[in-house]
Amino acid sequence: MIVITSNQTPEEQVKDIIAVIEKEGLQVHLSRGADHTVIGLVGVVTPKLAEHLRQMKGVENVVKISKSYKLASRDFHPEDTIIDIKGVKIGGENLVIMGGPCAVESPEQIDEIARLVKASGAQVLRGGAFKPRTGPYSFQGVGVEGLTMMAEAGKRHGLLTITEVMTPEYVDICAEHADILQVGTRNMQNFDLLRKLGTCGRPVLLKRGFSATYDELLNAAEYILAGGNKDVMLCERGIRTFETYTRNTLDLSAIPVLQSLSHLPVISDPSHGTGRRELVEPMAKASVAAGANGLIIEMHTDPDNSMTGDGVQSLFPDQFDNLLKDLEKLAPIVGRKFSTSPETVSAL
Amino acid sequence: MIVITSNQTPEEQVKDIIAVIEKEGLQVHLSRGADHTVIGLVGVVTPKLAEHLRQMKGVENVVKISKSYKLASRDFHPEDTIIDIKGVKIGGENLVIMGGPCAVESPEQIDEIARLVKASGAQVLRGGAFKPRTGPYSFQGVGVEGLTMMAEAGKRHGLLTITEVMTPEYVDICAEHADILQVGTRNMQNFDLLRKLGTCGRPVLLKRGFSATYDELLNAAEYILAGGNKDVMLCERGIRTFETYTRNTLDLSAIPVLQSLSHLPVISDPSHGTGRRELVEPMAKASVAAGANGLIIEMHTDPDNSMTGDGVQSLFPDQFDNLLKDLEKLAPIVGRKFSTSPETVSAL
Amino acid sequence: MIVITSNQTPEEQVKDIIAVIEKEGLQVHLSRGADHTVIGLVGVVTPKLAEHLRQMKGVENVVKISKSYKLASRDFHPEDTIIDIKGVKIGGENLVIMGGPCAVESPEQIDEIARLVKASGAQVLRGGAFKPRTGPYSFQGVGVEGLTMMAEAGKRHGLLTITEVMTPEYVDICAEHADILQVGTRNMQNFDLLRKLGTCGRPVLLKRGFSATYDELLNAAEYILAGGNKDVMLCERGIRTFETYTRNTLDLSAIPVLQSLSHLPVISDPSHGTGRRELVEPMAKASVAAGANGLIIEMHTDPDNSMTGDGVQSLFPDQFDNLLKDLEKLAPIVGRKFSTSPETVSAL
Amino acid sequence: MIVITSNQTPEEQVKDIIAVIEKEGLQVHLSRGADHTVIGLVGVVTPKLAEHLRQMKGVENVVKISKSYKLASRDFHPEDTIIDIKGVKIGGENLVIMGGPCAVESPEQIDEIARLVKASGAQVLRGGAFKPRTGPYSFQGVGVEGLTMMAEAGKRHGLLTITEVMTPEYVDICAEHADILQVGTRNMQNFDLLRKLGTCGRPVLLKRGFSATYDELLNAAEYILAGGNKDVMLCERGIRTFETYTRNTLDLSAIPVLQSLSHLPVISDPSHGTGRRELVEPMAKASVAAGANGLIIEMHTDPDNSMTGDGVQSLFPDQFDNLLKDLEKLAPIVGRKFSTSPETVSAL
Repeated sequence: MIVITSNQTPEEQVKDIIAVIEKEGLQVHLSRGADHTVIGLVGVVTPKLAEHLRQMKGVENVVKISKSYKLASRDFHPEDTIIDIKGVKIGGENLVIMGGPCAVESPEQIDEIARLVKASGAQVLRGGAFKPRTGPYSFQGVGVEGLTMMAEAGKRHGLLTITEVMTPEYVDICAEHADILQVGTRNMQNFDLLRKLGTCGRPVLLKRGFSATYDELLNAAEYILAGGNKDVMLCERGIRTFETYTRNTLDLSAIPVLQSLSHLPVISDPSHGTGRRELVEPMAKASVAAGANGLIIEMHTDPDNSMTGDGVQSLFPDQFDNLLKDLEKLAPIVGRKFSTSPETVSAL
Repeated sequence: MIVITSNQTPEEQVKDIIAVIEKEGLQVHLSRGADHTVIGLVGVVTPKLAEHLRQMKGVENVVKISKSYKLASRDFHPEDTIIDIKGVKIGGENLVIMGGPCAVESPEQIDEIARLVKASGAQVLRGGAFKPRTGPYSFQGVGVEGLTMMAEAGKRHGLLTITEVMTPEYVDICAEHADILQVGTRNMQNFDLLRKLGTCGRPVLLKRGFSATYDELLNAAEYILAGGNKDVMLCERGIRTFETYTRNTLDLSAIPVLQSLSHLPVISDPSHGTGRRELVEPMAKASVAAGANGLIIEMHTDPDNSMTGDGVQSLFPDQFDNLLKDLEKLAPIVGRKFSTSPETVSAL
Repeated sequence: MIVITSNQTPEEQVKDIIAVIEKEGLQVHLSRGADHTVIGLVGVVTPKLAEHLRQMKGVENVVKISKSYKLASRDFHPEDTIIDIKGVKIGGENLVIMGGPCAVESPEQIDEIARLVKASGAQVLRGGAFKPRTGPYSFQGVGVEGLTMMAEAGKRHGLLTITEVMTPEYVDICAEHADILQVGTRNMQNFDLLRKLGTCGRPVLLKRGFSATYDELLNAAEYILAGGNKDVMLCERGIRTFETYTRNTLDLSAIPVLQSLSHLPVISDPSHGTGRRELVEPMAKASVAAGANGLIIEMHTDPDNSMTGDGVQSLFPDQFDNLLKDLEKLAPIVGRKFSTSPETVSAL
Repeated sequence: MIVITSNQTPEEQVKDIIAVIEKEGLQVHLSRGADHTVIGLVGVVTPKLAEHLRQMKGVENVVKISKSYKLASRDFHPEDTIIDIKGVKIGGENLVIMGGPCAVESPEQIDEIARLVKASGAQVLRGGAFKPRTGPYSFQGVGVEGLTMMAEAGKRHGLLTITEVMTPEYVDICAEHADILQVGTRNMQNFDLLRKLGTCGRPVLLKRGFSATYDELLNAAEYILAGGNKDVMLCERGIRTFETYTRNTLDLSAIPVLQSLSHLPVISDPSHGTGRRELVEPMAKASVAAGANGLIIEMHTDPDNSMTGDGVQSLFPDQFDNLLKDLEKLAPIVGRKFSTSPETVSAL
């Protein structure tokens, strides 16, 4: 860390600052410029010391040099993390496709969609059993039963499954039924949930908060990694901007940036990232062209009658199928190949 | 709700749209303009129907007319809500002041601060026992013990207490120890928590999410109200903007706007809203001048050594004291008067 | 337009509203709902009438139905605009590539860069003669001489040229020397400049303001179109968001959205859109995959010594060359083909 | 400036970086930490050198220490700037009130409004002769004639005048007719305009761009100051946020922050800052409570029929009058007193 003193800070205040730093057992390097004196700290700086320094007399600015996350950083883990779930590899050159409805509605619905998702070449079935709804009077999901319906559909058709978990108390039951647990955008900083996921024994897909920075996303991932769970995927799903035509603004620069800052796989969600069916196809292609390690896409056999009202962003099965055909052509141009199918799903 | 068809939508598609609406038992009013046909719906529109219509062929836009919240709306509750907690009135012309440290650190710390808060004329003691920290390696609070320390300090000095609750499983224990429960900015849309607070038997102070709109804040309040808890305060605590000089941007227009849309009291938090001690005083005064029903302010006897590192935004006791003296002069000019002290705190 | 009255608006106020509308010669359609009365207006609504209605007693909301732009809208011009400049076609299935330095620095610099840009397969040479600098003490460009240098380099190597014009008084001289005039992000709503460009006789590339919505961009284009200039390209160049790792956030959804709302070609600028060299390649590919009609990319032979300090986002010549090779493979997969070279540049 | 090298940057690259710095005649201070080496630069760093360093191999980050503005900074001008225009003092403890219509419409309109503005105790008459309109089909102002109408009204009633200038070519004519020239939010970075205002001989009120940071506003002010014009006022007029209920979000923290960073007076515009008449009064009071040096407020005798459609945010004369009465009570509590009237306006 570096402390920058104000213009005309008296020597005495500089000495006070140095005394505080040395009292904590850190070394000091001093540079005197024309307008400012710069004090470099060598050693581990606690948040408390940092804030103490920030508010001392004569301090103009305090600049953090080291990143606040370690386990998520590529500095400390230079090779790509490649997560292997029953033979499906996620990360590196592999492109994983997750498809399915916003919400599980019935055994028949999820089974038919699973069949189509598999036939189009995807590896993972997505579906929500519990739904986060912004108003208290909306459909809240079918609950635990939905987990069983989805697990069975995945098993029958040879697909992994992913589902959202919204609260710490549901982590265990979701981990029992699904191959991947998903953290939604509103829960990116639900620290109790993140901590619980650190020991859940399942890979986690962590969605970026809709107003979160890259740094905040990586710090949230750090919570899960610090608990001992190394299998974390980062997911760009759109941020809030002044534009209201799209539900969110999909920030595709996040893909190459997160891949350079971190070794974790980066998945793109063009469905929530745009909120409009007609934009899913171009933004899915753009995501892969930008280097995404995977996509998570909503698909529904009858989007007009979906129970969540999110059908407006769901592809029809033939659109999903055509998109995957195009992606198979596009992938090799940007150094990606489709992940293989799960070797076995019998252990579900 | 209103459905607007595109330019040149064929008559057949208009008929399809009308058929869908009438099938749900709603009435239709049709207006044909030069470029657009407008279809008005009379009756209760479910979210599912709304989304179905939005994605039908020929539909250009769907406009919501009624607000999605009811219990929080002034339309349905024209008089100000005035919450009475042991004789302290919150809402209407009353100005309530909540002061205290970011985190409870020790019995001595919270007792000394409580004494000073009371001496300055405030009615409520604030303090966190559990802290939401954005990195996994930061101080996480002293836990349940802190609740007891604060309850005792409040009782001894004749102050109500308010503390943040971060997860549904801690609602009961917090409700047992504190007079008011606070929902933090990152939990504004933690729906499981909101639902639990709807039946907790304590008034709730709901902080606006740092990227939330007024409408989203009022919908979050609706969750608590819908559970049967009528004692909800809204709290403006700063939003994220492009400006990084301040930690957040305190949106004071929220005060008169929320008071016009809703009957609930509106509290301002100039400490988190700015993140800088020197801005707390001007923004506290501005909040009262804008019509706030109360303030929640961080104060610490030794902010340089506070355990959370949030000391940088805490007032010193004499600053807090001087501020309250000024506010007593300012309040009557804008139609506010200080709330009275708690009648009794023996029942704590 | 639609006027929505508040809950419990007295009948008399509704009558007043209707009287105001009918006084302006418009027809009224009335729909009475349970909570609201909706008044539809048929005919052309002036902004003045709209605002008058918005502030009348009893009015809760006023909803615009028709778009405020006409000439830029696909509703009134269903086919793609294809701009033809000396045989280079911009729009439709054509993919145009514009490359060159941030600023023209010397005849030798721009000539060498032009040679390389042409050799890599691009059709247009970019370069700034006047630079908008956010501080008064920065390099402001070489001025009019730079226009001549660039025109000659373009002519010698068979490239069209594009340059930024910053103020109405420079439009004529820029139009004399360059094939395309560019409006920068800070000038998107410089209405005097836009009006002047409406009659300048040259195609215009209009950059989106860094906090502008799609609607505002299209209204700005409308200014130029309304002046009689039909050759307008829209340019996505990144918006400001909370993320500061990238200089801006390139909003690629803008590409398919603007193409659906408007018939005008949409160009992407991954250089300014990210501000980082290493992100230009992935975001250029993503732009094409999202359907862009062209790219404008900074390239410099010696970016470390560029005079503007924008070298940090400029590609090296070999990176530019490799990118174009990859784009030639990518284009056909998304229905794009490289524009042909200019037939003649002798007329410059 | 400080250069921070990456983790594991080889010694050779560190030497290269140092060589580049020393070649420019600057001194180097080196601090080696566990993970990073920090290189401090002593001397004046050109933007070109800064960018060169940023893109060198081994560089992780480059941190600016000195502010990029000088003349606007309180570091170099510790006392408040107090602008004296015909005896009206702006800055320091003085509170100046500017009132009037959005646009000058007719001699009668502006004369009647001037009379009322004066009677209520304000010192300055505001009014636009040229209007920046976001669509090409809107009312664009009455032009030069409006300047004369306003000058005469000001003279007759003993008021200074302020009007917006939108383009460099109109600076001279506006300076001839008005006492203060105003730069609108969309022109904050119109650098040609700012440069011209640096030599116009009139005080300038510079409005913050609706997405600009404090630093950008102060750099824009620097342009005017660097031209030799010392009489600059900064104006907070609302920023764009996700909230659409208000037209903009008035950022009142800007007032104390700008006053601490700069010696220039800070004026608040609650009319444009909210876009809603009912919010002008609370936000005007809040602005003064936050320490504003003045207010600029829209007032109209017949806002429902104002030609710009901005009537929706204009106060009625009696509202304006009542507001000023309240402000006279509020001002002394926060250390402000109303500016005195102009001594003479005959020199107009």
